[in-house]
Amino acid sequence: MPRFRLILEYDGAAFVGWQRQDNGDSVQAALEAAALAYSGGAVQVLASGRTDSGVHALAQVAHLDLPRDDPPQTVRNALNAHLKPAPVAVLDCQPVADDFHARFSCLGRCYLYRILERPAPLVLARGRAWWVPPGRGGRLDAEAMAEAATHLLGRHDFTSFRASQCQADSPLRTLDGLSVRAVEGGLEIRAWARSFLHHQVRNMVGTLKLVGQGKLAPGEVAIILAARDRARAGPTAPPEGLYFAGALYPDAALVGADFGAPPPGWADGKSRADSSR
Amino acid sequence: MPRFRLILEYDGAAFVGWQRQDNGDSVQAALEAAALAYSGGAVQVLASGRTDSGVHALAQVAHLDLPRDDPPQTVRNALNAHLKPAPVAVLDCQPVADDFHARFSCLGRCYLYRILERPAPLVLARGRAWWVPPGRGGRLDAEAMAEAATHLLGRHDFTSFRASQCQADSPLRTLDGLSVRAVEGGLEIRAWARSFLHHQVRNMVGTLKLVGQGKLAPGEVAIILAARDRARAGPTAPPEGLYFAGALYPDAALVGADFGAPPPGWADGKSRADSSR
Repeated sequence: MPRFRLILEYDGAAFVGWQRQDNGDSVQAALEAAALAYSGGAVQVLASGRTDSGVHALAQVAHLDLPRDDPPQTVRNALNAHLKPAPVAVLDCQPVADDFHARFSCLGRCYLYRILERPAPLVLARGRAWWVPPGRGGRLDAEAMAEAATHLLGRHDFTSFRASQCQADSPLRTLDGLSVRAVEGGLEIRAWARSFLHHQVRNMVGTLKLVGQGKLAPGEVAIILAARDRARAGPTAPPEGLYFAGALYPDAALVGADFGAPPPGWADGKSRADSSR
Repeated sequence: MPRFRLILEYDGAAFVGWQRQDNGDSVQAALEAAALAYSGGAVQVLASGRTDSGVHALAQVAHLDLPRDDPPQTVRNALNAHLKPAPVAVLDCQPVADDFHARFSCLGRCYLYRILERPAPLVLARGRAWWVPPGRGGRLDAEAMAEAATHLLGRHDFTSFRASQCQADSPLRTLDGLSVRAVEGGLEIRAWARSFLHHQVRNMVGTLKLVGQGKLAPGEVAIILAARDRARAGPTAPPEGLYFAGALYPDAALVGADFGAPPPGWADGKSRADSSR
């Protein structure tokens, strides 16, 4: 059976998350239902990284094996037709070798987190960013947040930024990149790693926001990290600002959205070594 | 009673349009209800330009008189609190002189129309742009569309681009600017005029799209305009791509969103002469 690699966009608000669950609609179940309707086969769709309820994807990478060998554009269009009206779209479909595995071949994942700062609640971008109204101190201090982010780079025990329900065997992870960039109306935070702990990106963002508000000094983030205590870090940032933005594969460079300059090592198809979740 | 000028953002999909109507929720009614709840007064809110059902605003300009004289930030925050959960936000509130009238003082209106081109249906931008999948000829030809647009500039009888239900006394309008710009993933079309006929922007966009697809030559748009026959022009572009983007007032320059370089005459607070609708 031919294997295809998909690049997917979805609106996380409509789903309990990527992974098939009993308590609601998942992106995986929507895709598998579309693949069944199109191909007649009970097809499994596997993603590079599972996303939580409410978390979006600009470019999730997945693969599936189909019992029919159509041109990839036909597969893309057929899946999109059967996905309606679920807010999931197949942006790209490519034939890949049988040993390509969206999850186990993946060498790195990247996320984008969007913060919009203005006094008025979000309307046209509602559900697409974290709304942070400017406080008495004004807008978030992007430079202080960027400085704080440097303390998180590298291989660490990320217990302070790990959800209590995280099922990973180890709290050790290697954070390859964490950038903070001021953009029109707000901030964009990008995170690159081989893999992340549960809620790690959102917990890092929630902590960086406290730095941006002047409630934490940048250097305190190093102390919070060293404490290995979830209670020391900031609150979990809401899911609506988070986007799965791309994945790294051997010899394939980055697959996914344009998310800025990747950290060293990523451009040549390598990331630092961590075990995959 | 103090008068305030508001800049508003709204999601047109939730409304029958700007103007209060019997058959559904209007932006005007949502604002007047919020103003009543806040101030205790039966307040009328008037806008620079009425928008149709489904048409968004990045920056609609409106005014209202309030029976209480609070600081403008207080007015903005109170209106936003009472507007919840309607998808309308007051971005800005400023005290203005009693002779400021959002509609009758307005010297020009500008609209933005967004087209997104890709094979996959829109997900994260669903309802925020016109989805135009690339045809056999590929992407829309922005240069041909820009050339076609020049034939519409100036003072003309726009009957070919006027909705049959248009209630304006005259089909004569002066189009000050009509730009077509290729952007990441699609096109942005901007239109500037003292006033527009009903559906004029969407009918011009629907016709320019045919030029972009090679179904009309740029010069044919001049022939369509001269024909004064609605049946000769293209179909009406859907409302979800259209945004009210700003308004021009005497001595105030442009009030509203950043919508590119305005046409000649606009920068110094003038637009060409047309009667207001």
